[in-house]
Amino acid sequence: MPDDRIAAALTHWGPRFTAQGVDPNDVARTIAGLERWADWLDAWCALGDLHAGLAREAEARGRRLTAGHAWVRAALAYHFAKFVWLVDLARHDAAEDRAIAALAAAHRCLDPTAERLEIPFDGAHLAATLRRPPGAARPPLVLVVPGLDSTKEEFFWWEQVFLDRGLATLSVDGPGQGETGRRLPLRHDWEAVVAAVLDALADRRDLDLARVGAAGVSLGGYYVPRAAAFEPRIRALAAIGGPLDFGALWDDLPPLTREGFAHHARARDPEEARARAARFDLGPVLGRIRQPFLVVCGQQDRLIPWRHAEEVARRAPRGELVLYPEGNHVCNNIPYKYRPLVADWLSEQLRG
Amino acid sequence: MPDDRIAAALTHWGPRFTAQGVDPNDVARTIAGLERWADWLDAWCALGDLHAGLAREAEARGRRLTAGHAWVRAALAYHFAKFVWLVDLARHDAAEDRAIAALAAAHRCLDPTAERLEIPFDGAHLAATLRRPPGAARPPLVLVVPGLDSTKEEFFWWEQVFLDRGLATLSVDGPGQGETGRRLPLRHDWEAVVAAVLDALADRRDLDLARVGAAGVSLGGYYVPRAAAFEPRIRALAAIGGPLDFGALWDDLPPLTREGFAHHARARDPEEARARAARFDLGPVLGRIRQPFLVVCGQQDRLIPWRHAEEVARRAPRGELVLYPEGNHVCNNIPYKYRPLVADWLSEQLRG
Repeated sequence: MPDDRIAAALTHWGPRFTAQGVDPNDVARTIAGLERWADWLDAWCALGDLHAGLAREAEARGRRLTAGHAWVRAALAYHFAKFVWLVDLARHDAAEDRAIAALAAAHRCLDPTAERLEIPFDGAHLAATLRRPPGAARPPLVLVVPGLDSTKEEFFWWEQVFLDRGLATLSVDGPGQGETGRRLPLRHDWEAVVAAVLDALADRRDLDLARVGAAGVSLGGYYVPRAAAFEPRIRALAAIGGPLDFGALWDDLPPLTREGFAHHARARDPEEARARAARFDLGPVLGRIRQPFLVVCGQQDRLIPWRHAEEVARRAPRGELVLYPEGNHVCNNIPYKYRPLVADWLSEQLRG
Repeated sequence: MPDDRIAAALTHWGPRFTAQGVDPNDVARTIAGLERWADWLDAWCALGDLHAGLAREAEARGRRLTAGHAWVRAALAYHFAKFVWLVDLARHDAAEDRAIAALAAAHRCLDPTAERLEIPFDGAHLAATLRRPPGAARPPLVLVVPGLDSTKEEFFWWEQVFLDRGLATLSVDGPGQGETGRRLPLRHDWEAVVAAVLDALADRRDLDLARVGAAGVSLGGYYVPRAAAFEPRIRALAAIGGPLDFGALWDDLPPLTREGFAHHARARDPEEARARAARFDLGPVLGRIRQPFLVVCGQQDRLIPWRHAEEVARRAPRGELVLYPEGNHVCNNIPYKYRPLVADWLSEQLRG
């Protein structure tokens, strides 16, 4: 019998693994026989090692495409090894390092446009991945924003949905997210993050910075509208499975989520974490979001109640609500519905 | 509780659904609550209708890529509705018609190179799909050969593995397979089928017919080596999960497989089916296969024992065996291992 935390991780995030590109057989094999949360990281790292081994073997034979796909699978496995696993921070960070290295190898094999950016911010830097669609001289750009426990290492195929539609992507690990989170704790005022990112890109001639959109998942569905309320350079935005008021949900969140927030916020105790979470409230700024704003939510979401999405869409001046009755958190159990919708909609808004 | 046939279909072919591109959440939703084999077809057709609806909606909005992907999912759902389901042949054929139409719509949206070919054969014709990789004037060609219950409507993403490596694909429904099977019963002497196909392509300038390979899955792993033994225009071949001697396995095959064979062979009774199956024996022709021959099998294959693959590879003059200890039938529970391997290997053989 898996313990409570394994059961919770599978209940809340199971479909996310496959939506992001983990083979469903790998999910089944990795969790088979897993009983203790303490063992979660090693089981997923073993999966990462398997794919890294396949990648190296393929590279040695000059099979570049095969190698690249295997590196993506390795990055995903190392990422999910630690995404909500904070039992041992040294091992957490070691797995994160392997995810970062694996994704860099994937980019080397698969996407010559991929660039790692380090954007100065608050005395440290934001780590980000920029990718551009082939054949477009000056494509529109979508900022791809993670949530509490996602990072840019999770987004290779999510980025591809935008790239396939002629949109460049910038996946950014903001404060409290992934490798950036080691240097900077999470913060609610994401307009500062987006301003730093867009300032850093301002001189580029290979992106059309008059056509910038943003898409955030989960807590990223708070970050993106928060930033858009203050940042007119965001021309259109989408939030998938994001909250209206994270603090109001605090007591109903799973322990893994509360502990993750406390960790990434560097809170000294649960009360400080709760106080920090209370700042994550879109209510006061919704009226300022004048851009076209797509709000997507699943009515089976057990983390962020869909009533939050409904209220966000109603109160934002140009909010447009898409509710999926069968959708779970971030609608990752119906990826074929929300992913093309968000990318098509952003593409139409930015080109229209 | 699902009945025996539902349980058997899931046990033998469950991973095949996702390997070919069915969303794993869709598999779970479609089989949830399914208890009677008689209801299998309707449940999968309902899934096909869902995706066809998404496709039409996307097309109406000019979202061509989204529409195309939805049409592929519709084709797969209609295909798996009837792949081993022979309870009512009129409904079987109606589902097949919808799979064919859905895949044609997918090609229209996604791949301007895709062509439907109807190749004269034995007083009727073989239906086939030709696709070419973008940017290659005269690419090598891979014949993609189905088995007992697969058809070209199952192969959009399997073809893509070859296309991504610069190889054109021709997926052909031979005698007893898919729509061709309505006109022609299955036959063991597949050299006749391949000869007709290659003769029909002989004048094309957009394919390099001096570099033709072939890959067959399951019973297609019999058809391809059988043809190669007599057809030198096949320069390299791969068999995945194919038998040495299908007749020798007859009594151990699942009822769904024996009934499928009898149906596609137009056998009047089980004894005639068994007699026809006995002709599907590579033993007498293995020594004639002088081409490079990759033999892939999973040691957990419950339909075709891996000892068959071992013997095929040993007795074929240029046989090369790849055994996966964890692989099931056709290794569809490790698609990321066998698929790139087969495509990389064929690409190297045909270009080397």
